[in-house]
Formats: sequence, structure tokens, C-alpha cells
Amino acid sequence: MTARNLLLLPGDGIGPEAMAEVRKIIAYMNEEQGAGFVTDEGLVGGSAYDAHGVAISEEDMAKALAADAVLFGAVGGPKWDDVPYDVRPEAGLLRLRKDLELFANLRPAICYPALANASSLKPELVEGLDILIVRELTGGVYFGEPKTITDLGNGQKRAIDTQVYDTYEIERISAVAFELARTRNKRVCSMEKRNVMKSGVLWNQVVTATHKEKFADVQLDHMLADAGGMQLVRAPKQFDVIVTDNLFGDMLSDVAAMLTGSLGMLPSASLGAPDGKTGKRKALYEPVHGSAPDIAGKGIANPIAMIASFAMCLRYSFNMVTEADRLEKAIANVLDKGIRTGDIMADGARQVGTVEMGDAILAEF
Amino acid sequence: MTARNLLLLPGDGIGPEAMAEVRKIIAYMNEEQGAGFVTDEGLVGGSAYDAHGVAISEEDMAKALAADAVLFGAVGGPKWDDVPYDVRPEAGLLRLRKDLELFANLRPAICYPALANASSLKPELVEGLDILIVRELTGGVYFGEPKTITDLGNGQKRAIDTQVYDTYEIERISAVAFELARTRNKRVCSMEKRNVMKSGVLWNQVVTATHKEKFADVQLDHMLADAGGMQLVRAPKQFDVIVTDNLFGDMLSDVAAMLTGSLGMLPSASLGAPDGKTGKRKALYEPVHGSAPDIAGKGIANPIAMIASFAMCLRYSFNMVTEADRLEKAIANVLDKGIRTGDIMADGARQVGTVEMGDAILAEF
Ligand SMILES: CC(C)[C@H](C(=O)O)[C@@H](O)C(=O)O
Ligand SMILES: CC(C)[C@H](C(=O)O)[C@@H](O)C(=O)O
Repeated sequence: MTARNLLLLPGDGIGPEAMAEVRKIIAYMNEEQGAGFVTDEGLVGGSAYDAHGVAISEEDMAKALAADAVLFGAVGGPKWDDVPYDVRPEAGLLRLRKDLELFANLRPAICYPALANASSLKPELVEGLDILIVRELTGGVYFGEPKTITDLGNGQKRAIDTQVYDTYEIERISAVAFELARTRNKRVCSMEKRNVMKSGVLWNQVVTATHKEKFADVQLDHMLADAGGMQLVRAPKQFDVIVTDNLFGDMLSDVAAMLTGSLGMLPSASLGAPDGKTGKRKALYEPVHGSAPDIAGKGIANPIAMIASFAMCLRYSFNMVTEADRLEKAIANVLDKGIRTGDIMADGARQVGTVEMGDAILAEF
Repeated sequence: MTARNLLLLPGDGIGPEAMAEVRKIIAYMNEEQGAGFVTDEGLVGGSAYDAHGVAISEEDMAKALAADAVLFGAVGGPKWDDVPYDVRPEAGLLRLRKDLELFANLRPAICYPALANASSLKPELVEGLDILIVRELTGGVYFGEPKTITDLGNGQKRAIDTQVYDTYEIERISAVAFELARTRNKRVCSMEKRNVMKSGVLWNQVVTATHKEKFADVQLDHMLADAGGMQLVRAPKQFDVIVTDNLFGDMLSDVAAMLTGSLGMLPSASLGAPDGKTGKRKALYEPVHGSAPDIAGKGIANPIAMIASFAMCLRYSFNMVTEADRLEKAIANVLDKGIRTGDIMADGARQVGTVEMGDAILAEF
């Protein structure tokens, strides 16, 4: 069997603690199931800046490009609030997304039944919620040029960011959304602001054309992104798959994640195009939550989102569907048993730390 | 007494029905209180397109520029989905905002006590909610150039939108936010994506500097806009005034509006700078909801947002604070009495149509 090469980039804050729990699962799968994972490690974000003065080193970028999949923790924290823009912690993540061409960001917003009460929404609105947000990740205002601040003289500066989308970028992300919808409830809702943005006009046209040409069996709806944000709050269960651009996807997926009441639990996958020869996709998996510097190092962080991200890795990078299902089931079982980290604590539940939560999931796996 | 000049632009869909209820209040104030309102009317959106082939005629633009305040209903509907981009219904609204230089959009997100149960959030999270979103309205990606779709050949097109912000634009909108915070709970939260956008970096710097120079008595916090969306859903009462750019403001104010459960009730004000000589500000008042083409013409639309927009007009354009308070109180009283349009219907309440709702408010006024 060929090795399965994983690069672990724990990053900053609670990233390393959460990653440690995934490492235990990897070790278990290697020992008990001969899974053949070969892991390497690298630095990203503030920890890379402290070591190398950049948000990710060339060496670690080379490792990421060579790996079958990258597991990413989290980056950032007040310590690095004032480092130069180009080497700020987020730059490491953005470079990974761009250089690995990870254009498809999959963000499931699911509500774990045991946590329906943790949502700020009425439980009946989120119970059983299962949305998949497909966010374009390598285009739009995140990477468009010019992206500058210019001194205009007399005390005035001008900041410019540029949103750019080409047809092929919209085509490939909508194809991913339609394909995933086929494995779910066969409904896609595309969101943009075509009433204000030219990129919204093109987005709408290309999604519509892609649908008509290749995915007419899937139901397609369009919604303005602001109305989409409203509808997510009003009645989230109306959605199956949502496809949207990089910036709207950032906002909408965070709103959707918070709706579930399960923010500390939500994973994401960022995928590239399948390689022409091998069919393999470059991929990076990361929790939706941030580095939570306020609780870092205390052993109380919730490792579930990181572990669930590894489950996505098993599913999408290694086609280990049974193992992915089992790992996700293990997480649900542990929650059903009332084992909780502080962020999802509830009356009558047993509060545990990061390590115990990892152990409990491993025991169920 | 000098006349108070109002231009009414009812627009499309439920706009005209809602505006009719405001007209009754204006007539009452003229007759009973000698308020001296002089009203004129114009067309905007689809109705202007049908009459003149544009989203607003030059004649009506001239009237808007001359009026003390503009009352705006709503624009758009499926009928005009395929009209050319430059004359789509929204273009009329965007031109009014731009040509009247209405840079400050005030969107209160308040939860009427009688409606706390209508929210999709748990009632305890929204009861007593009172946020003011101050959205920049004449800059950013809405108006930045280039804004184009270019044919690149071989089937590819490229869409470009440009987000542009100059120092003075950020200064003046943050000054408005700080000033309004002084009349409230003295807290401002500024939202941007400085970790990704250069305009976010400049936004953050200028808001910080404006605060330090002139408004140090107000508490200032900064939040990334995606985290801000999350926090709005998680615990909206943590906010007092939120200041943000045009596009983030569009998204965040819609999410905030939906949280209150009172979407059909929320007004907005769009204000220009005070005139150097007279101190008067150009202003436009409009409901946050849209044209709701599905229920237009049925006499069932909720006119409260439009009436509450007129209350904002009394307050901000004519300094008629007592009258504004009384009109807002009249709305609250009618709701307390259990009089409801269909969109906010509840068990045990009495369902009424648009006209009856207007009459009930007028009776309480
Ligand atoms: C950390 C930041 C650059 C990033 C983004 O804006 O994409 C984050 O918010 C996310 O959603 O993954
Ligand atoms: C109608 C549309 C152009 C407008 C906007 O995007 O600003 C609307 O959504 C709003 O928020 O007032």
C-alpha cells in the first residue's frame, strides 16, 4: 500500500492542542488498522512568523504542495496584531489556499441533535439542520489586484480592493456544488448581489448556464446575498447546498455556523481540482473556529471541529468513507453520552478538557 | 412658517400601498397641527422604467434634490428582472443615494416587545434589543470603478467590481456613528475585514484615529465583519451602535433586521452632510423591507416600516422630536393591543389589512 502523506500545520492558539487529539487518532489508525499515514509537521501563522519572520516558510509550502492532504489548526492572536500586513498570520492560510489552488471550500453547517438547545435560534428551527456551504476560495476580493493603500497627499489616503471573477472560476465552483447536491437533497441555492455588482451578474449567468448544460436534474435557485443572510436566520432548513463567492461565503458560512449552536464542532474542507493523471485533489482541512487565544494552553479547547476536519480528510482525500462515517458517529455518540467541553456545556452533562474529549472520541471510534 | 417639502417616491410592489398610509398621517398633521407639509410625487424603479425607460427621470431627480426630504417606498419585481443593468429598478435608488450624497445610512434594529416571539431567536436574546447600524452608503464596492464585464475571448468573461474608500469617507461616517452613540449607550463597534482587505486596514485606522481625536468619551471596539455576523446571531444585545462599510452594512443590517422578528417594521434613514449655511441635511427615508411583489396590490402589506420611516423623517429632517416619539409610541400601542397584519400575526391577535393598520396607528397618534 502506498503511504498516505499528511502535513500537520497546527498553527497558533488552540490549534496545537486540537491537533494533538487528531494525532492520537492517526496513531491509532496506523497501529490498529495499518492505515499507513505518514505525517510531517510545519509552522504557519504567528508561530511561523516567530520562527522565520514569515507567515509560512518556503520549506513548509513545499511540504504542503507535496502532501496528499494538509491538516490546518488555526492562526492568529493579539501577539501578532501589529506585524506587517504581508506577514500577518492570515497570510499563511491565504497563501496555502492560493498556491495549492484550493478553490472549493466545503463548510457543512450541521446541528448535532444533542446540541440543538445550544443554538441561539429556537430549537425547532435548527434541529436536524444540515446545510452545505460551497464557498469559492481562490478568487474574488481576497486576491484581486489592485489591492493597495495610496497616499493622496493632504492627509488623505485611498484604499482599493478588487473583486475579480472569470467564467471558469464560477463554472468550476458551481460544478462542485451541483455534484455535491446530487449526493444530498439535489438542491442548490446560488447567492450574489447581481443588483449591485457586475461580478454578481456574471456569477448568476455562469451558474445558470452550468446548471442548464450539465446539472438540470438538480434544483437551482438564486437569492441575493443579503436576502440569503436573512433567510439563513429566519428558516435555515430551507437550504440544502449554498454556492457563493469568497467574501459572501466568508460571511454567510460564519452566520450559518453560529446558527447551529455547534461552532466549536464544525469542520471544513478546501479542495483543488482533480489532477488530470492521478485524479487526486490537493486538499486542506481546517476547523471553522479560530485560534481562540483567550483559552489557548489551558487544555479546555474543544477538539471536535479539528477531529471532524480529519473525518472530512478521510472522506475526500483518501476515500475512506467507512472510517469517516465511523469517526463522525463516534463524535455524535460522545455528545449523546453527555460528555462536553466547556463551550458546549449543558445541564446534567459531564464537563471534560481537550484531552479527555479526544480520548472519549477515540474510545467510541 | 416655511413649508416642509416632501417628495414621495412610492416605487413598486407594496411601496404605493404602504405610502398611502403615510399620506394619511401627513394630511392629519397638516389639518390638525398645521404642520405645513407640502408633498410632491415621483416615480422610481420599475414604475419609472415603464413610464420613462429609466429607473428615475431627470425631473424626479431634480425634485429630490430640491426637497427637504424624500420618502421612498420600495423598488423591483420579477416584471423588471430582465431590463438592462443601467436602468434596473435598483439603479434609481442607487442614483438617489449617490447624487444626494446620502453617505450615512441609519438602520435601527429594534425588537418591538409585542413581537419578541416572532423572532427565530430565543425571545430572551432579542427582548429589548435596540441596535443602530450605521452603514456607509455612497462608497465602497457599490460605486467604485472599474465595474465591468469584459469578454476575454474563447468563451471567457471577466467581471470586475472595485471597493474604494478614501480617508474622508471613513471619517465622516464614523463621526456620525460616534455622535449617535453619544445619544445612546456610548458604545460603537466598527466592523471590517482588515485581515483580508486593504480598505479594512484603512477603515480600522481612520475609525481609530477619529475616535482618539474627537470621541474618546465613547467606547470603541473593532470586530472582523464575519465574526460580527456571528456575534449578531449569538448575542445581539451586546451591541449598541455598529459602524461598517456599504457592502458589509448591507449584509449585517439585513441579518440584524431579521433577528428582531420585526422585519416588516424596520425603517431606515439615509442622510447627507449638513449644509454649510443652513445646517440642513439632504435625506431619504425608506423601509428596510423590499417591494414584496408576491403580496402587492392585495391590501395585506404591513405599512409599519414605512410609517416608522416617516417618524425618522420627523426626527432627523424636521427636528419634530415630540411628534416622532408620539408616532413611534402609536405604533407600539397598536401592536400591544394585538392588532396585526398577516406577516406578524400571532395567536389571539386581530388580523387586519394595510389600510386598517394605518387607521389604527393614526387613531393612536
Ligand atoms: C482567517 C481569515 C483570513 C479567513 C477568511 O476570511 O477566509 C477566515 O475568516 C475563514 O473564513 O477561513
Ligand atoms: C436594493 C439594493 C440595491 C439595496 C442595497 O443593496 O443597498 C438594498 O438591499 C438595501 O439594503 O437598501
